[in-house]
Amino acid sequence: MALALTACGNHHMPVREVRDAPQMLTMPQVLEQSAPDEWRSLDLANTLYLEFEQGRVIIELYPWLAPKHVANILRLTRAGYFDQLNIIRVQDNFVVQWGDGEKAKQFTQSLPGEFEQPLPKDAPIIYLPDVDGYASHVGFRDSMPIAADPEAGLYWGAHCYGVLGAGRDNSKDSGSGAELYVVTGHAPRQLDRNITVAGRVIQGMPILSAFTRGEAPMGMLPEQAAKPQILKVRVAADVPEAERTALEILRSDSASFVRLVESRRNRPDAWYLRKAGHIDLCNVPLPTRPKTTP
Amino acid sequence: MALALTACGNHHMPVREVRDAPQMLTMPQVLEQSAPDEWRSLDLANTLYLEFEQGRVIIELYPWLAPKHVANILRLTRAGYFDQLNIIRVQDNFVVQWGDGEKAKQFTQSLPGEFEQPLPKDAPIIYLPDVDGYASHVGFRDSMPIAADPEAGLYWGAHCYGVLGAGRDNSKDSGSGAELYVVTGHAPRQLDRNITVAGRVIQGMPILSAFTRGEAPMGMLPEQAAKPQILKVRVAADVPEAERTALEILRSDSASFVRLVESRRNRPDAWYLRKAGHIDLCNVPLPTRPKTTP
Repeated sequence: MALALTACGNHHMPVREVRDAPQMLTMPQVLEQSAPDEWRSLDLANTLYLEFEQGRVIIELYPWLAPKHVANILRLTRAGYFDQLNIIRVQDNFVVQWGDGEKAKQFTQSLPGEFEQPLPKDAPIIYLPDVDGYASHVGFRDSMPIAADPEAGLYWGAHCYGVLGAGRDNSKDSGSGAELYVVTGHAPRQLDRNITVAGRVIQGMPILSAFTRGEAPMGMLPEQAAKPQILKVRVAADVPEAERTALEILRSDSASFVRLVESRRNRPDAWYLRKAGHIDLCNVPLPTRPKTTP
Repeated sequence: MALALTACGNHHMPVREVRDAPQMLTMPQVLEQSAPDEWRSLDLANTLYLEFEQGRVIIELYPWLAPKHVANILRLTRAGYFDQLNIIRVQDNFVVQWGDGEKAKQFTQSLPGEFEQPLPKDAPIIYLPDVDGYASHVGFRDSMPIAADPEAGLYWGAHCYGVLGAGRDNSKDSGSGAELYVVTGHAPRQLDRNITVAGRVIQGMPILSAFTRGEAPMGMLPEQAAKPQILKVRVAADVPEAERTALEILRSDSASFVRLVESRRNRPDAWYLRKAGHIDLCNVPLPTRPKTTP
C-alpha cells in the first residue's frame, strides 16, 4: 500500500501541506473516488449487535487494544449476561453506561486493567500530523482512534465520541467488561490511559446519544425509573447471515482515508470561507456504507 | 484581582506547573472554597429563557462577540418571532437548530457576518496555557470559550459544547440571528471564524441534547414530522422576578476558576490513576449554582 506513516508534528502551527491530494476533494468526492479494496467488512467475530426498541447499535471490538476484556465481553455476550440489561447512566456530554453488578457476579470476575499496549512495529497505524494536547502522537488503527507514546513504546485507545470502554471502580484491576460505557459527549480524553478501552460504535450512535439524561449525580438513572433496555446482545458471527447488517467501513490505512482527513482538515465545501488547517483526532469521521454483495 | 493572564504555551508538552494552587483540590473543594464575589449573576438584559415542554433553557448572549446579532436576537425575541418555532434540525454529534426562513422575512433582514472582533487590551480574558490545534491562544471571557490571534489583534467565539451561533447560507453576510443553532456534539471547531457566535447555553443542555436525531442529511427533521417546539422565548430582564431562574456562575476571571481548570487538568480525584497534564478548551466545565438572595 502506497501510504507512508505521517510524521507527527511537534509544531504548534498545524501542518498545511497536502501530501496526498493534488486537488482538494469534498468528503463525498473522496468516497466516490475510493477503490473497492479501501473498504472492509466488520470483523464479525469481534462485532456486537445490541438490539434496542429503537434499532440496532453495532460495536466493533479490538482485541489488540484489550485482549482479555474483549474475550470476556464476547463470553459474557454468549452467556446472555447483557440481554435485557438496562441503561443505568446517561450523563449529559459524557457517557451512557450499562451493566448489573449483582448479576455480573454470576458470570465473571474482574480482570487486570488493559489501559495501554506495547506499540507494535508493523501494525497498520496511521498518525495524524496534527498537534494533540494529550499525547505526542494520535491516529487510527482499524478505524479506532488511538494515541501513542513511541518513546515509551506504548499506545492506547483515545476517548472520542462513540468509543466503548469498560467501567471500573477506583482500583486499576476492578473492571471486567461487565460494565460498559460509550462516550456521547465532547471527547473526555482525561480518561485515556485510566481505563480499558475495548471498541467503537460503528452504527447506531443516534440511539445511544438521545436517551433522556439522568438528573442525579453522574447521570445515574433512579432505581425505580423506566430505563432504556438492551433487548439482546449477540456476536455478529453468531447471527444468521440474513439478520446481519451488511456494512463496510473505509479502511483507516487507505489512501482515501488520508485524503478524507485532509478534506476535513481544510474543507473545500463552498460554505467554508476559512479553512481550519487542523483537525482534532475526534473530529475525523468514520465513513460507512451498505455492503454490496459481490 | 490577583490573577495574571497565563501565557499561552507554544510547546507541545502540556504545562504542568501549578501556578495558583499550593495543594490540589477537587472541583467540589474548589467551589466550596470560592469567595462570594467570584460568582456573578447572569446579565439579564442579554439572557434568553427558552421554554420547552421539558423545561427551561437559559442562554447568555455576549454583545462583545456579535453586537449586531445579539441586538437583533433580542429584538426578534421581543417581537415574538421565536415563540412556537420548531426545532428543525437535530444532527447527531453536531448541532440542534431552529428558525423559520419564511416567518423571518416579516421580522428581519440579514446582517454583516460578525465572525471575529478586535482583541481589546483590557478585557477580562483568561488564556489557558494548554496547546490548541485551532488557534495560538484559547481561553474565556465572561465564561464564554474564545480563541484569539493576538498578532492579528483578533478574537472569536470557540465552538464548544453548548455554544450558540447564528446560521447563515454560503455568503458571509447571510445570517441575521433568526436561524440559531447550539453545539450538541464534539466541538466542531472548524466552524470557528466561519460563522457568527453569539452566546452560550448556561442551563438546560440536557433538553437540547436529547432530542431524537433527524435521519435525513444534516439531521433535518421532515416537514411533516412531529418536531420539538419552543413554547416561548423571553429576555430574562423582561420576565417578572418571581419567574426568573435565580442562578449564578463562577466568574472566569476569578482565582477559583484558575484553580478549577487546574483541578480538571490534573484531576486529584481518587479514581484518576494518571493525570492528563492538559485540558482541552472545550472540556473546561462551567460551574453554576442557585443564587441565594442576600
